[in-house]
Amino acid sequence: MRIILDAMGGDNAPGAVVQGAVLAAQEFGVEIILVGDEEKILAAAKEQSLDLAGIEIIHAGDVIEMCDDPTRAIRHKKDSSMVVGLRLLAEGGADALVSAGSTGALLTGATLIVKRMRGVKRAAIATIIPGQKQAYLLLDSGANTECPPEMLDCFATMGSVYAQKVLGRQNPKVALVNNGAEETKGTPTYVAAHQLLRQNPSIHFVGNIEPRDIPTGGVDVVVCDGFTGNVILKLTEGLAKFFSAELKQMFYHSFATKLAALTLKSGVSAFKKKLDADEYGGAPLLGISQVVIKAHGSSNAKAIKNAVRQAKACVENGMIDTIAANMAACKAAGVPNAEE
Amino acid sequence: MRIILDAMGGDNAPGAVVQGAVLAAQEFGVEIILVGDEEKILAAAKEQSLDLAGIEIIHAGDVIEMCDDPTRAIRHKKDSSMVVGLRLLAEGGADALVSAGSTGALLTGATLIVKRMRGVKRAAIATIIPGQKQAYLLLDSGANTECPPEMLDCFATMGSVYAQKVLGRQNPKVALVNNGAEETKGTPTYVAAHQLLRQNPSIHFVGNIEPRDIPTGGVDVVVCDGFTGNVILKLTEGLAKFFSAELKQMFYHSFATKLAALTLKSGVSAFKKKLDADEYGGAPLLGISQVVIKAHGSSNAKAIKNAVRQAKACVENGMIDTIAANMAACKAAGVPNAEE
Repeated sequence: MRIILDAMGGDNAPGAVVQGAVLAAQEFGVEIILVGDEEKILAAAKEQSLDLAGIEIIHAGDVIEMCDDPTRAIRHKKDSSMVVGLRLLAEGGADALVSAGSTGALLTGATLIVKRMRGVKRAAIATIIPGQKQAYLLLDSGANTECPPEMLDCFATMGSVYAQKVLGRQNPKVALVNNGAEETKGTPTYVAAHQLLRQNPSIHFVGNIEPRDIPTGGVDVVVCDGFTGNVILKLTEGLAKFFSAELKQMFYHSFATKLAALTLKSGVSAFKKKLDADEYGGAPLLGISQVVIKAHGSSNAKAIKNAVRQAKACVENGMIDTIAANMAACKAAGVPNAEE
Repeated sequence: MRIILDAMGGDNAPGAVVQGAVLAAQEFGVEIILVGDEEKILAAAKEQSLDLAGIEIIHAGDVIEMCDDPTRAIRHKKDSSMVVGLRLLAEGGADALVSAGSTGALLTGATLIVKRMRGVKRAAIATIIPGQKQAYLLLDSGANTECPPEMLDCFATMGSVYAQKVLGRQNPKVALVNNGAEETKGTPTYVAAHQLLRQNPSIHFVGNIEPRDIPTGGVDVVVCDGFTGNVILKLTEGLAKFFSAELKQMFYHSFATKLAALTLKSGVSAFKKKLDADEYGGAPLLGISQVVIKAHGSSNAKAIKNAVRQAKACVENGMIDTIAANMAACKAAGVPNAEE
């Protein structure tokens, strides 16, 4: 299996990506192709005394920056690591691509270069978010601010396949975000989406989920539009930061509280690990015709490695084909989500 | 000043409401009118050995339950404590009303019986949410799932007045929820709302706020539609519950951690107090032509007392008249938010 890594994407590139590539190649036995500035890649490897034997490097001289306009960057920076990598993927030169670069550019690039799957109007960003019982998959977590009911239904199908094939959830529970449990709740879009999800033969729909119940992690897939998903994802991050700061303040109050904090150290570590996004790898772009994973911008080597593991699981478990088959099944059942 | 209390509203009614009424009458020197089942009110007072001297009781034999359909309940339960109370307010028999009963029924009842202010298309529920630096006012937090830009602009005007007049914030910072800081971000509705808020002469607009930054409490007023507001409000509650449960688990792990928890007790209490909604009273229904406060359904006596304090502040500081004046100023400036 061949997996492309965008060596220049992310806050810690290329150092963390190169290290992650070496770890992943060793641990998972996959072929890694590093795309990016060859000189910088080799320098990063040398600096960390990493052996790149068996890792292929494809030179790309340009970089898409976080501040670049996504569409313009994809169209004009033809020699950027991201565009070169996506082109290689589209041409069949690899099985998957991982990038920690700009989310907008990756989404645009994947859509324009790798293309969407048949029957998918818009790709979604699916993010794995820690919960009390278990992590859940949130989609769309920011790609499409406005989503008609059919799009939400399509997200449900794709998210359910991912939860099953990659997260290993049996008969994953799919829920629709809403401001009440009753099927009449929410905007007209959400009322209509509720009915589509109920009729969707390829998912196990458990109804609406109220935002208060999302963090318990009682469901596997949480479906909503990208505006709402962005609120859920980013507010969760913001509140985790707020609570951590308060906890820290509590611990650093006095000598006695510092001692108490030491006693609680293992508990705090376990909690931090539970909330650590790096443990979960990256966010798959669902609806693209090949496997594309967006790693967090602040990814360290471990996060990059985990994103490669995720990409490998997507390929091995036939995620793309299963999504395609389920979309076709929906279409055959007369459910409108699979219509082009 | 005369303030009506819906004695039968809320999970702990009438006991907590009656106790809250006595506390408020003593502390704030306001006249309290308890509306509800007289026999039950007197029994609740007797049970708690409370002296109701100086508190007026107006009998209402029926109760609007949480499961009742709001519109039907307001139309048909004419002898319910909420409807009798709202009618009394509308007829000029008091200056404000506080209820811990059904939010939907209170909003519908206030709209149908007390009526909206001139120039306000829909009333909003404004909730005070704890933040790292300071609490902030979120509106709409659930009344209107879909809001055109003009409605969001109107919410901004009303929220700003409330922050100033009741929360005592000088030149309150008003922000619009969005998935990015740039003015082109978000749905077409939010892009248009951004422009209206920028031109609004009666507010200090600081631009879009990303959900990650909401919990820091750097702004005073956070504006969004009711679907998004409900997500923010309820997800905050859900995550606070999740984190508290994790903290508890950490503390109860062993004898040593229990001892450590004792040392941290005052810090934990301070944190809990910061997050305690009861400290902040209730949620004003902004846009109604008189002061109506929705207390939390689980309100205890302290929360009821604080909601009365809040109602008193609204009346004393001329909140309604200031909102009316600011709406008129917007209209005079040619800003469309004040159009009927």
